[in-house]
Amino acid sequence: MAGSTLGKNIVISTWGESHGKALGVVIDGFPAGMELDERDIQKFLDRRKPGTSSATTSRKEDDLVEILSGVFEGRTTGTPISLMVKNTSQRSADYSEIAGYYRPGHADYGFDEKYGFRDYRGGGRSSGRETIGRVASGALCSKLLSQMGIEVCAYTKSIGDVEIDPSKFDKSAIYSTPTAMPDADADKRAMELIQKCREDMDSIGGVIECRITGVPAGIGEPVFDKLDARLSQAIMSVGAVKAVEFGDGTKVARYRGSENNDEFEMMSDGSVSKKTNHSGGVLGGMSDGSDIIVRAYIKPTPSIARTQSTINKSGENIDINIKGRHDPVVVPRAVVVIESMCALTLLDLMISNMSSRADYITSFYKNK
Amino acid sequence: MAGSTLGKNIVISTWGESHGKALGVVIDGFPAGMELDERDIQKFLDRRKPGTSSATTSRKEDDLVEILSGVFEGRTTGTPISLMVKNTSQRSADYSEIAGYYRPGHADYGFDEKYGFRDYRGGGRSSGRETIGRVASGALCSKLLSQMGIEVCAYTKSIGDVEIDPSKFDKSAIYSTPTAMPDADADKRAMELIQKCREDMDSIGGVIECRITGVPAGIGEPVFDKLDARLSQAIMSVGAVKAVEFGDGTKVARYRGSENNDEFEMMSDGSVSKKTNHSGGVLGGMSDGSDIIVRAYIKPTPSIARTQSTINKSGENIDINIKGRHDPVVVPRAVVVIESMCALTLLDLMISNMSSRADYITSFYKNK
Amino acid sequence: MAGSTLGKNIVISTWGESHGKALGVVIDGFPAGMELDERDIQKFLDRRKPGTSSATTSRKEDDLVEILSGVFEGRTTGTPISLMVKNTSQRSADYSEIAGYYRPGHADYGFDEKYGFRDYRGGGRSSGRETIGRVASGALCSKLLSQMGIEVCAYTKSIGDVEIDPSKFDKSAIYSTPTAMPDADADKRAMELIQKCREDMDSIGGVIECRITGVPAGIGEPVFDKLDARLSQAIMSVGAVKAVEFGDGTKVARYRGSENNDEFEMMSDGSVSKKTNHSGGVLGGMSDGSDIIVRAYIKPTPSIARTQSTINKSGENIDINIKGRHDPVVVPRAVVVIESMCALTLLDLMISNMSSRADYITSFYKNK
Amino acid sequence: MAGSTLGKNIVISTWGESHGKALGVVIDGFPAGMELDERDIQKFLDRRKPGTSSATTSRKEDDLVEILSGVFEGRTTGTPISLMVKNTSQRSADYSEIAGYYRPGHADYGFDEKYGFRDYRGGGRSSGRETIGRVASGALCSKLLSQMGIEVCAYTKSIGDVEIDPSKFDKSAIYSTPTAMPDADADKRAMELIQKCREDMDSIGGVIECRITGVPAGIGEPVFDKLDARLSQAIMSVGAVKAVEFGDGTKVARYRGSENNDEFEMMSDGSVSKKTNHSGGVLGGMSDGSDIIVRAYIKPTPSIARTQSTINKSGENIDINIKGRHDPVVVPRAVVVIESMCALTLLDLMISNMSSRADYITSFYKNK
Repeated sequence: MAGSTLGKNIVISTWGESHGKALGVVIDGFPAGMELDERDIQKFLDRRKPGTSSATTSRKEDDLVEILSGVFEGRTTGTPISLMVKNTSQRSADYSEIAGYYRPGHADYGFDEKYGFRDYRGGGRSSGRETIGRVASGALCSKLLSQMGIEVCAYTKSIGDVEIDPSKFDKSAIYSTPTAMPDADADKRAMELIQKCREDMDSIGGVIECRITGVPAGIGEPVFDKLDARLSQAIMSVGAVKAVEFGDGTKVARYRGSENNDEFEMMSDGSVSKKTNHSGGVLGGMSDGSDIIVRAYIKPTPSIARTQSTINKSGENIDINIKGRHDPVVVPRAVVVIESMCALTLLDLMISNMSSRADYITSFYKNK
Repeated sequence: MAGSTLGKNIVISTWGESHGKALGVVIDGFPAGMELDERDIQKFLDRRKPGTSSATTSRKEDDLVEILSGVFEGRTTGTPISLMVKNTSQRSADYSEIAGYYRPGHADYGFDEKYGFRDYRGGGRSSGRETIGRVASGALCSKLLSQMGIEVCAYTKSIGDVEIDPSKFDKSAIYSTPTAMPDADADKRAMELIQKCREDMDSIGGVIECRITGVPAGIGEPVFDKLDARLSQAIMSVGAVKAVEFGDGTKVARYRGSENNDEFEMMSDGSVSKKTNHSGGVLGGMSDGSDIIVRAYIKPTPSIARTQSTINKSGENIDINIKGRHDPVVVPRAVVVIESMCALTLLDLMISNMSSRADYITSFYKNK
Repeated sequence: MAGSTLGKNIVISTWGESHGKALGVVIDGFPAGMELDERDIQKFLDRRKPGTSSATTSRKEDDLVEILSGVFEGRTTGTPISLMVKNTSQRSADYSEIAGYYRPGHADYGFDEKYGFRDYRGGGRSSGRETIGRVASGALCSKLLSQMGIEVCAYTKSIGDVEIDPSKFDKSAIYSTPTAMPDADADKRAMELIQKCREDMDSIGGVIECRITGVPAGIGEPVFDKLDARLSQAIMSVGAVKAVEFGDGTKVARYRGSENNDEFEMMSDGSVSKKTNHSGGVLGGMSDGSDIIVRAYIKPTPSIARTQSTINKSGENIDINIKGRHDPVVVPRAVVVIESMCALTLLDLMISNMSSRADYITSFYKNK
Repeated sequence: MAGSTLGKNIVISTWGESHGKALGVVIDGFPAGMELDERDIQKFLDRRKPGTSSATTSRKEDDLVEILSGVFEGRTTGTPISLMVKNTSQRSADYSEIAGYYRPGHADYGFDEKYGFRDYRGGGRSSGRETIGRVASGALCSKLLSQMGIEVCAYTKSIGDVEIDPSKFDKSAIYSTPTAMPDADADKRAMELIQKCREDMDSIGGVIECRITGVPAGIGEPVFDKLDARLSQAIMSVGAVKAVEFGDGTKVARYRGSENNDEFEMMSDGSVSKKTNHSGGVLGGMSDGSDIIVRAYIKPTPSIARTQSTINKSGENIDINIKGRHDPVVVPRAVVVIESMCALTLLDLMISNMSSRADYITSFYKNK
């Protein structure tokens, strides 16, 4: 059954394998009339490109996006937007060996059990390159959200035990540090840790935080399409994510209600506010007007150079040494992926919300 | 837009408010021929019923389920199964006061912003009673899963700082302790904590763990309908859940790859196994043949008796004291809800998996 | 797989068998704030009730609808609306015989092949009573559409070879004639034909036409969710419909382009019009501003009293005489069903259309 | 909202405009392990290619398909299959004039009303070239269906008043005659009619019939996802179709039940058969074991060379002469499109049917 298709109003279908001809996405249902050219999308893709920072793999990929449909005279037409990135840096030979065994921590075994065989080159469909389609879609959604004063901003919160200091938050650093940390000092220490992992032929995990500001209250559909529920699916669907939390997250399990409840208050300008934001901006599955705070916990890259034991397709226990160019940490490159999944999900639910009241519908058609 | 409908093969639509005439669910797409009577469902509903344990509210509700359609001569017919529980213990007067203000930690404000008004009686649609439809559906799915040797088993892992001792795991205790903990000793300490919270006019959170055994490898659809992604949506959609994690969960962010990778090995009986299960049974979004381990972190009940400040609908800052019968902890009653969401999601994806290979389809029709 | 669930924004799930406890529908996603009480729905259900006219079966059923959820203080709340009609006039004994054989023209054989067995009482799920949930939903959608100046009006166009005279169109006659024809004279002749069929222990087919006025241009989503495509699914899903056509319909296959094209023209009031309406109000899958005209061709009731030959479940050729109270014609009772399916589909697509342009979305949120 | 996405198990998303860079489709959910190369698809695309017959436009397009993903070592992998056809024969200049007015019989006006502007070059998204993605998908589904002994075969039944003689049915002629008629004699007369239309600067409609053989009984999901309902949406979604009918179709409205009912009978080989097939192979929305017969009524090409009056975007009444290379009849090229939509829909519903019984699911997993 189809599993590469997501969304209710804006439906994206991503496609492509790590070492196939190309990768891409079809975005169906994106509204008409938004100005769009390749640079809007390239800007996002460049943030996930390998080889941009010393924190990541040394592979060189250009990942240049082409708009194949759905844009005319510089604006979206309302019809499907097809985006494609050609694969140019394929060294399939590197991967031929892994065809015969199941790498620990990878999807190889599941693919073979599910489909009977797999495109083993570079991880095939389960490669990190699969996220190209996600990020390209996220670029469009972020652009439209920003026109409504909504900012979706993800960054690296920690790598291993190196954590940012929130009091030193520097947004520009997200886009300039190799780790995508908003704290140059933490970045420096994280880079040392990453270098250490590389020397140890090992890898390391980390945490990505995404903060969404400017969302009006009431976004999210009770019961199953809650804002946090839909964001959880979207974020957990990114490879390597093992936990998702909102606001104070796992900590709430030890809280008292009197600690956890956020009290509402009226501001002097007549706006509604909350004195605290333990909820992470979501109450009862709907936005509560505060910043939405969500975190993804990312596992260490499973491809490590040191010897591991596993089984091969003939059912033998074997020892392996995985070759190839691998990131010792996937966190920095996944930041824009998480940001994109949040943008996609939020915009989709904001569209749903436009028909939440009968008079929204009747007014829309009366004013046309 | 519709938000109370979930699933791709088996689609459930839940309905009902806390103090309306009734609550229920329509289960569309459940396969034909499974034996079913009310007792199969009642058994599950009784696990979420208030008044069964001293850990929860003193309200008495019978919550007797009626099968209205889709079952004939004791078996499911393949057509929609409509299940209903009538509301019998409604004391709406208790709630009239809350119509005018927004309770901290509740969905009241979001509902008013989204819909313009709300059914404020007992939380209306955002009441815990909404889960009746979820649990009734879960009962059916669990029954069918058990016929395939799959067991979905949820329990309370911790309440506040009281945690079970895994070495004392006693499954039967889940169904007999008031906290739904599989450890009578921890249960006793947790009950003391709950009593303390009650005395303090406060509430407490906790953690629910669900272990699914017997799932073959390869269940879950790359890319967006990953097993862990779909489970995350399903679990996060339960009110009060603020974090979801699989296997070692949040801890992996600090792991090295060499610590986190689970090595595959062949067992002497020819089966595939993993030496460890850091992954929690999911790799690349597909089951890996190990037990699936997922945890939900539950916030403390937001309705607490002590004075809180908030705003009313007129935009004034006010102090409130919430009346009514409230659980100091929702964890024990939510255990069967989490278990149900896991059963629903897993069965749905197992059906999807039946068409993953062309020869599954051709064989099915050749053998008919 | 689920097949009783329909819609993208407003999702309905119908349930119930002819001789089960009850029938009903859950309407998920209906917008909040519309005034609604049982009478709004009952009015529609009464139009499909048997026993109201001499043209139909003599069974007496009250079919009183109950609103179980989703309405508070007289208005829809935005949460699922559960509607139920209890079955009260069940004479299951009449049907016990048909359990063992397959009635010609009925779904019996398909049900047994698909599900392994069936609820044979009164046709079970394939009974005309299944349409109760459709009509109840249609009542809500029609009410909201009427608040936007849109009228969905279906009527009997012909029964056998008796056709209405469009020049004598009298809307009020639809609701007063036993055939639901808008032409009292044709009604009289049709009733004679129906009486003749009854005497012959036979049945007769007919045509239902639905005219939708007031729809703005541009409703319907290219490519697969075209207005006419979605209406076709909705209408063909009504039992007994064997053909669906728009505007000049089947006749266009013999037309020249110069005959079929509708020329646009500007009216003196500045509005756009078409000189003709061969298209039936749909061009390229979108409404074109003219009246939408769609016709459903209904087969004669398959249950006829005369002897027919068929097979039984043991694989023997047998002769049967179907007992029970059957309509010699289903057309009059199906009129409100077709009208309901059109209302549901149109409203669903009108909601989709609200996000067709980026500035619709940005304006909506700026004006909130 | 998304409208270019179709299907429940196999989900296709088509994209592309007539004069954009390329057109294509992503097929998500197609099962793994089927042998596939470009020739399987090209064979189908060639049947819709212009310039192959004297019946159609003189444009030359190669329409060579590229498989971009989802196929590895000659077999489908179970992951999304991305197919692309580059646009090579673009003479956009021909179309620049139509930017400013609304062609009668076309979607131009609807597009502008819906989206605010449109890609006017060659009809943009509403061009017949949009069907490339449909046909490419249909090729895959037809191939898998044929491996189960199911044949989906569409052909031209009539053009204008020239109809095939069923007694002279010659299947091979479908693929060799310019009209796609299975009757060389009728083809000759139809070609004369088409030539006459061309001379008259006019166009003509026709009827396409599709016969599906080998389908087991019970395919199709009551209530809304009936086989005939889903086929109706799929077929009506093809541009220019104005009516869809099954079996005796519109004629049944004048039938008596005794004429229309198909009596079941046991064949000497123990198989179930029907003495007649008025139903067109569908009863109660499920296949009944007989051939499925469905017909699409196609309107004459709206682009005709003779002078027509219409309005321009400034709201003026004007006269126009549409330039460009247009088919005087679209029927021959639409044959493979209708065939593809039938194949897609049928395969999708056959997959749904695999979970219709509980023991189908339990057996599948026991036998794994």
